[in-house]
Amino acid sequence: MPVPLPGLPERVTIYEVGPRDGLQNEKAVVPAGVKSEFVTRLADAGLRTIETTSFVHPKWVPQLADAEELLGVLPRSPELRYPVLVPNERGLDRALANGVTEIAIFGSATETFARRNLNRTVDESLAMFAPVVERARAEGLWVRAYVSMAFGDPWEGDVPIEQVVSVASRMMDMGCSQLSIGDTIGVGTPGHVTALIEAFTAAGIGTDRLAVHFHDTYGQALANTLAALHAGVTVVDASAGGLGGCPYAESATGNLPTEDLVWMLDGLGVETGVDLAALVATSRWMAGHLGRPSPSRAVQALSPSPDSE
Amino acid sequence: MPVPLPGLPERVTIYEVGPRDGLQNEKAVVPAGVKSEFVTRLADAGLRTIETTSFVHPKWVPQLADAEELLGVLPRSPELRYPVLVPNERGLDRALANGVTEIAIFGSATETFARRNLNRTVDESLAMFAPVVERARAEGLWVRAYVSMAFGDPWEGDVPIEQVVSVASRMMDMGCSQLSIGDTIGVGTPGHVTALIEAFTAAGIGTDRLAVHFHDTYGQALANTLAALHAGVTVVDASAGGLGGCPYAESATGNLPTEDLVWMLDGLGVETGVDLAALVATSRWMAGHLGRPSPSRAVQALSPSPDSE
Repeated sequence: MPVPLPGLPERVTIYEVGPRDGLQNEKAVVPAGVKSEFVTRLADAGLRTIETTSFVHPKWVPQLADAEELLGVLPRSPELRYPVLVPNERGLDRALANGVTEIAIFGSATETFARRNLNRTVDESLAMFAPVVERARAEGLWVRAYVSMAFGDPWEGDVPIEQVVSVASRMMDMGCSQLSIGDTIGVGTPGHVTALIEAFTAAGIGTDRLAVHFHDTYGQALANTLAALHAGVTVVDASAGGLGGCPYAESATGNLPTEDLVWMLDGLGVETGVDLAALVATSRWMAGHLGRPSPSRAVQALSPSPDSE
Repeated sequence: MPVPLPGLPERVTIYEVGPRDGLQNEKAVVPAGVKSEFVTRLADAGLRTIETTSFVHPKWVPQLADAEELLGVLPRSPELRYPVLVPNERGLDRALANGVTEIAIFGSATETFARRNLNRTVDESLAMFAPVVERARAEGLWVRAYVSMAFGDPWEGDVPIEQVVSVASRMMDMGCSQLSIGDTIGVGTPGHVTALIEAFTAAGIGTDRLAVHFHDTYGQALANTLAALHAGVTVVDASAGGLGGCPYAESATGNLPTEDLVWMLDGLGVETGVDLAALVATSRWMAGHLGRPSPSRAVQALSPSPDSE
């Protein structure tokens, strides 16, 4: 029996990142056929926006080197959206050649991470994105912008809110439709989330264009999501089964598990369209392919116990 | 750099349950000397209220059969409070004989769990507690009341709010000073938390007498804590390292990890008096004794990586 909380949205769109952000950070490389079945099962569980892969050069992300193959076999439907990560014009060429209609670019709020992740300064990375977004928009594509290290950076520490808003605003000014605020290292806490969202709103990027992307590194992802919903955000990134980063290494860096999010939203009476049981079954199946249990608490709790009587 | 969230308390008291609720649910039995060092290290990390053990009959909880031995060796200080679980008059006799000054009784909101955990109906269990509380108060002891299964029950499903308030009010009317609302199976979500706290306030049990006790079975514990803080609660139960239940079995049932809670409160600028680094070191040391890693995300993230370069 759901018990609503005043001030929350009636409906939340889950932006599923398991096949891309999740699998790209797993040690195991998953065959395209398994990925395709994964995406299909996620769609069957009711997820409607599934980031499927990336056109980053395979040298950098070998886990997603099969992007073309995967896109060639995925089931299509007018209600299913499959955004794909695109870093540059070469990536955009590949996306367009494969019928992609939604792309995401990924910028960094900090100079250090821009240098390490994109091999560029922040300014240089924005100069790289500008023609990508311009051409994508001219081709009628929907474009999402990620801003990573939006709360803290492992090398720079706390990242000032005004710096995040400045970099992200320049990405949005290129013509992006949605901004995903990424706590890449999972250090953020709810007050910081609220303050950042309010700063974006004050800068003209309202909650109708914002998404939040939390990692559960310090166990904060769901509490931060609750704060973001209170602040008016209605698009939440999550990863089925908490894929991404190895949770059984001591340096866990996984995404917010979609199941933990759906459990909370179901309990709050917030509509998502997702069938939790089908999603849990999918994540358990995927865990079998990865050879380790899902780090999602909800997946663990909703799975039959090996020592049950 | 903390970023406060309007409407939260300035200070939160963490009621540490690791040595009792944590260790009683671990498979391994820990020697009294290790328990004593555990409590000492928790106190050195800044925790001031530490539930240390239980005077339940050792037949039921062999992990805590050494209650007298432990209480005999714990360091004492006027600022340290060591509540002990007491189920009945025999338990109270043992508590008084060992110089205990704070006790906790534990009731169930549901008939099924009262029968399974206490081998009594709810009415019979309350009749058992009444003389315990009366004598304890007469002896000048501080008494906490736990009400378990306050959100859901594995056999009965959803537990009506009015039923929880009714049972808990009868315990508080006996003369208890604090009520800890227990989501024993971790199914609750933030709207339910808020509604239950509001119902208690309406029934005359204000947030100055309430504590919350969440289990992270479905990953909801910290989000539920945030809702409880918003509703005015300032005492939060947590277990160092997330002790309690085996997180690597598929049926994880651990408590809210104290470290994940402290990370959030530190980030929010809410004072706890706890030194997170000392606490993490303590939980890592205890994990060594238990022979498995801590399930706390914050403990994992703040521990040196085994494969760091």
